[in-house]
This record gives sequence, C-alpha cells and structure tokens, in this order.
Amino acid sequence: MQREDFPGSPLGLHRVIEPAGTLPQAAWRLDSSPGLWPDEARVRVHRLNLDAASFRQLTEAVNGNAAGTEGGHAAAMRAAVLGIVGERGKMQNPVTGSGGMLTGVVEEVGPDSPLGLAPGDRIATLVSLSLTPLAITDGLARWDGRSEQVPCEGHAILFGRSIAAVLPADMPVPLALAVLDVCGAPALTARVVREAWAGGTPPVVAILGAAGKSGSLSAAAAREAGARWVIGLVPTQAEADLLTASGLADEVVIADARDPAAVAESVRAAGGPAHVTVVCVDVPGCEGGAVLATADGGTVIFFSMATSFSAAALGAEGVAADITMLIGNGYVPGHAALALDLVRAEPGVRKIFESRTAEG
Amino acid sequence: MQREDFPGSPLGLHRVIEPAGTLPQAAWRLDSSPGLWPDEARVRVHRLNLDAASFRQLTEAVNGNAAGTEGGHAAAMRAAVLGIVGERGKMQNPVTGSGGMLTGVVEEVGPDSPLGLAPGDRIATLVSLSLTPLAITDGLARWDGRSEQVPCEGHAILFGRSIAAVLPADMPVPLALAVLDVCGAPALTARVVREAWAGGTPPVVAILGAAGKSGSLSAAAAREAGARWVIGLVPTQAEADLLTASGLADEVVIADARDPAAVAESVRAAGGPAHVTVVCVDVPGCEGGAVLATADGGTVIFFSMATSFSAAALGAEGVAADITMLIGNGYVPGHAALALDLVRAEPGVRKIFESRTAEG
Repeated sequence: MQREDFPGSPLGLHRVIEPAGTLPQAAWRLDSSPGLWPDEARVRVHRLNLDAASFRQLTEAVNGNAAGTEGGHAAAMRAAVLGIVGERGKMQNPVTGSGGMLTGVVEEVGPDSPLGLAPGDRIATLVSLSLTPLAITDGLARWDGRSEQVPCEGHAILFGRSIAAVLPADMPVPLALAVLDVCGAPALTARVVREAWAGGTPPVVAILGAAGKSGSLSAAAAREAGARWVIGLVPTQAEADLLTASGLADEVVIADARDPAAVAESVRAAGGPAHVTVVCVDVPGCEGGAVLATADGGTVIFFSMATSFSAAALGAEGVAADITMLIGNGYVPGHAALALDLVRAEPGVRKIFESRTAEG
Repeated sequence: MQREDFPGSPLGLHRVIEPAGTLPQAAWRLDSSPGLWPDEARVRVHRLNLDAASFRQLTEAVNGNAAGTEGGHAAAMRAAVLGIVGERGKMQNPVTGSGGMLTGVVEEVGPDSPLGLAPGDRIATLVSLSLTPLAITDGLARWDGRSEQVPCEGHAILFGRSIAAVLPADMPVPLALAVLDVCGAPALTARVVREAWAGGTPPVVAILGAAGKSGSLSAAAAREAGARWVIGLVPTQAEADLLTASGLADEVVIADARDPAAVAESVRAAGGPAHVTVVCVDVPGCEGGAVLATADGGTVIFFSMATSFSAAALGAEGVAADITMLIGNGYVPGHAALALDLVRAEPGVRKIFESRTAEG
C-alpha cells in the first residue's frame, strides 16, 4: 500500500490539503489516508496523549454545552475529538493550536523511511500531534472523556523527518512517556556543557527548577557531561528536600526564579556565577535572574515555553551581559536514548519522576 | 542634585517602583526623577529613536482609532508615547515590550559613575529605552508622528551598567544613531561566523531582511568575518535592487520571509542551505523559514523582536532540525566601534542607511 508515483517531502508537505504551501503544523487540513509515500511509516495507534492545554479547553467547552450526565459528557468529549480529527486529519485543537503525542505499534514502513523503525515496534511519537496525519476508526468507544490519555484505534503517519522513539521494555510506559516528553533538555544541556569544557575548565552549571522533570534530567546530564559543580535552584523547602535526597546537585538553594537579584545572589553564594545556566521553570519572568546568574562569556539555555524572547534579549543588553542565550530546541540527535539512559543510571532522577507522575 | 544617602545599584534596582524586586527592564514603572544616585549620570535628551516593532505597533493602533487628518495622526501618536512615558517612567511599548534608544548631551555625572562620560559629551544610549528612566517636557511638539526618530526635550538616567557611546564626529547624527541602534547584530553575526569558521570551512550565511539596517550591517559583518557566500533575502524587487546595488550580498533572492517553504527553497537555490542564518525581518512568523533554510549543525540568530520563542522552539523540534538557535543579545563588547567601522569601510552599507533614514 505505497504511493511510488511521487516522492514525498520529508517534512510532509505532500500531505497538506489546505492552505497549500504551509507546513503540516500550520496547515488547517492534512491528508491522513493510509497509503504510504516511500519515506513514510504508518503506526497503528493505541493511545493519544492530549496536550494539557488542549484537554482543558475541550473539557471546558463541553461542560459549557453538554447535559450533566456522565454518558453525556463522554459522548460530547468523543464528538469533539472525532470532529477535529475528521475535519483536520490531525488532532490539533483549533483553539489552543496544540496537540500532544501518541503511542502505538509500527504497521508498515516505506522503503525510503530514514527512521530506523520496523513493523511491530512499540513507539511513542516525539513530534507533536499538531502535525501528524491521524485517522480514528473506533469512535473512541473506550474513552470516558475524563483523562487526557485517550485509548484509541486508528492509524497515524510519520514523515521522513518525524521523530519516534521505541518504548523501552524495562520501564513502565507512563514513566517512559514522561521522560521522552522532556528529552531535549538533557541532550542540549550535555552538549553545551561539553562545549564549555572545550574552553579548558569544567564549568559551573546552575539549573533553575532543578527538582522538576526537565530540571532533574538536565542536572544529571550536566554532571555526566563533566560539570565541575551543579547548583540546583528550587522555589520551596519541599522541593529542596526532594532534590537534596536525589543527590543530583552539589548545592541546593531556595529562591524565587522570578526575582533576578535573589537568583543572582543565591547562585553566587552557592559557587556561581554559572558558566551554563539552564532554565526549566515553566512560569513567566525568569529571564532576568538567569542572565544575572551567568558569568560573562557563559551560556543560558531557555527550555521553558514561558520564556519571553524580548525579555531575554533586552534583559541581557540592558545589563551589558556578554552571554550566549539559546532557545531550547527540543530536538538533538540521540536525545531519547540519552534521557532514558539517565533514568536507568541515576536513581535520583527516577525517584523525582516517580514522585511527579504519581502526583499528576 | 545628587542623592548621597543610599548607594545606587549598578543595575538600577533602586529606580524600580513596581513591581518591587524586578529589574528595570521587567518593571512596569520606574522612578525617572532627575536627582542622581552616586553612580548614575543624567542626559538632556535631544531625540528618541523608537524600536521599529514598537513604532509599527503604535502606528497601527493609532490608524485603527484616529481620524484620517494629518494633525489627528500626529496628535494621536504624541498622546500614545506621552501616555506610556507618563505612566511607566520609560518608553517601553507595553504591547511589544520593546523600546529603542536616545541621543542627547550629558548634563551631570555622579562621582561614582564608571561610564567615563563628562558633561557636554554628545552621546547615544546603547541600552534599551525599555529600561531607561525618562521624562519628557516638551509634549513632543516637534514630532509629526511619521518617523521613528522623535525630536524630544526632557531627561534620562544612565545607571552604572548602562552603556552609552559618544557620537562620532565624522558622520551625521541620524546616521550614527541608526547604526548604533542595531550595532549588536553585526557584532554577534561576526562572532558566530568566526566560530563556524573554526570548524574548518568558511560558512554560507543567509540574511533574512538583508536590505534593512541590521540586515545590511550583518551582511557586511559576515563577509568581513570570513563568510564564503552571503545570501540576502528580501521581500520586493525594489529592495532587491537596493541590495544588489550595495554589493553586500553574493546572491539576492526575493521571497516572503513568512513562507517557510519559499524561504527554504530560495535559499537552497541561491547556494544554501546556510550554516548561519540571521533573521532581521521585523514581522512575526519568520521562525519556520529560518529553521528550514539552515543546514544541520548550523545556527540561526534571531534579531527580530517579533520572534516568538515557542514558534522557534516547536518549529525546530517539529522538523527534527539539529540547529542552534540564538536569542540576539544586543550587547557584545566592542559592538559600537565595529558597526561604525563597517559603515566607514563599506559604501554599500552607508548607501542603504542613507536611503532608509531619508525615507523614514
């Protein structure tokens, strides 16, 4: 079931129905038909993992409309998701613009697919549902509409440049999914720490939000990549206790990441300023503290989606900080394997993830 | 007129009125009173140079509201700027977050100021208006609202870590000002090109918006730093003619910077993909094109204040682009001298600046 007549674009441009010429993520409607272009792969879907913002929006919209019965809620949620996927050929919430990820089993692989997958592989997609062609065939009958994890039958298409990770056999699926969700952060942190090392001296690394998922993985990655000293900054005593118990940081400090002077002062007192500062705090307003905590010639990596581009650019300029500021690219080759290996090697990371996935 | 009772912070924290504890750039409101702390300096303002994104936003907002008469437009623009400065104690556009710069004459210098300025020096500030305490006293009576260069009377405050450049004697003030306003771009471009060079091969550089001010300076800086091939992307035939006449680019291409496929294809056809891509287009939506125009292992430098952090981060991840994305830090040591020297050495840059300052 392959379409050999036309070479597929690795970005999936050939799947865009409208508007013509846009990338799949920006498109309104994709072609989700199951026939493969030569560099594509098809996945039998087991579960959608809706993005938190999208799930919340759908729930609120449905609560505003549907009858109060439990069956009414489930039916309305199913109808909402089926309506979007039916109309757009992908599960991209039109209000939030966001998607999520999916798990499933590889069903067929085109002869030119560069992804290294084989039929039967259990995988999770690491590209967003907002650009993944998707068709649902079971009417979402097994979903009660109460969880962002949606049991589902159907198929999805991976492009040549889509990314998927084979799910590891040695850890529970929810843990693996949580790790894969943030696996870009430790990979980029490791790269930047190694580059800083190349200057001759192992760097001091500060992680803002070090007791979270991306933060704890980044702390572990920094140490493995040769950091001389890892400073973990957290907002509360409870998080400080969690981080201290994990052993991932050489020094743990408590400060509000949105308070620039407090961040700078506490990082300095803990062995800073940092040569590499990693921002993993998902609240707005952390740019100034990250800039001030970083030594001249150093690097700040912003992973938080709450980062303001202009606040970072103008904040550094405003204090004449000669530092490099990176937009945290979620893709680094080998990122999934690196993150999963950190979880295997570092009991402290696993402990933090388990405490986080248990609560949420 | 100095305040000796309390030592000023070199970052200007003592000027923040609200919210307490923020840096001046992030603050909603600053104290712009003229009395100096010991490490401050006060400037008598001659002219504000509004950031392009801010000026465009104000113009569009005013066009949406005001009457069509010329006098109505000028009055509405004046009211908009005076309203912001009156409320915030600085000229930071609340929508774009951006500011601009100013020129003036140093009026008084605190005994502990490290800036090396003396009363009577004609200077331009190189820190953003978004963090510079400012008071306007002439109602902007001499501004017609049609130019981002705003004749102005009033005073501004420089902190210990603010940056100011003495205006050069060998070029007109509007030209020097326009150059200093964007001098971070060529300096960072030169640094990144040299670093790319260090890999062994001189890089291909693509400049999006190459016929603009920061774009033309960045093109000149890229070539001086050893770029192998400079591709200039512009939106119109008129800009293409201007850029071609300047001689700053090895290849000139016309494309809409917001159309990712068109940008990628035209840069590729012109000798790309680029090892270094520099985004100098001040409109939203240029992230995807910049990502796709850049080779794996390459670097994108975003100078446009219209850049969306999440669009860049998710855009690169969505197409598995292994690229480094930099937030364009406006401060690089020596940036003012480097940019002024490029204007002196490259008639093409000067020509572009003169055509731009004449029209605007």
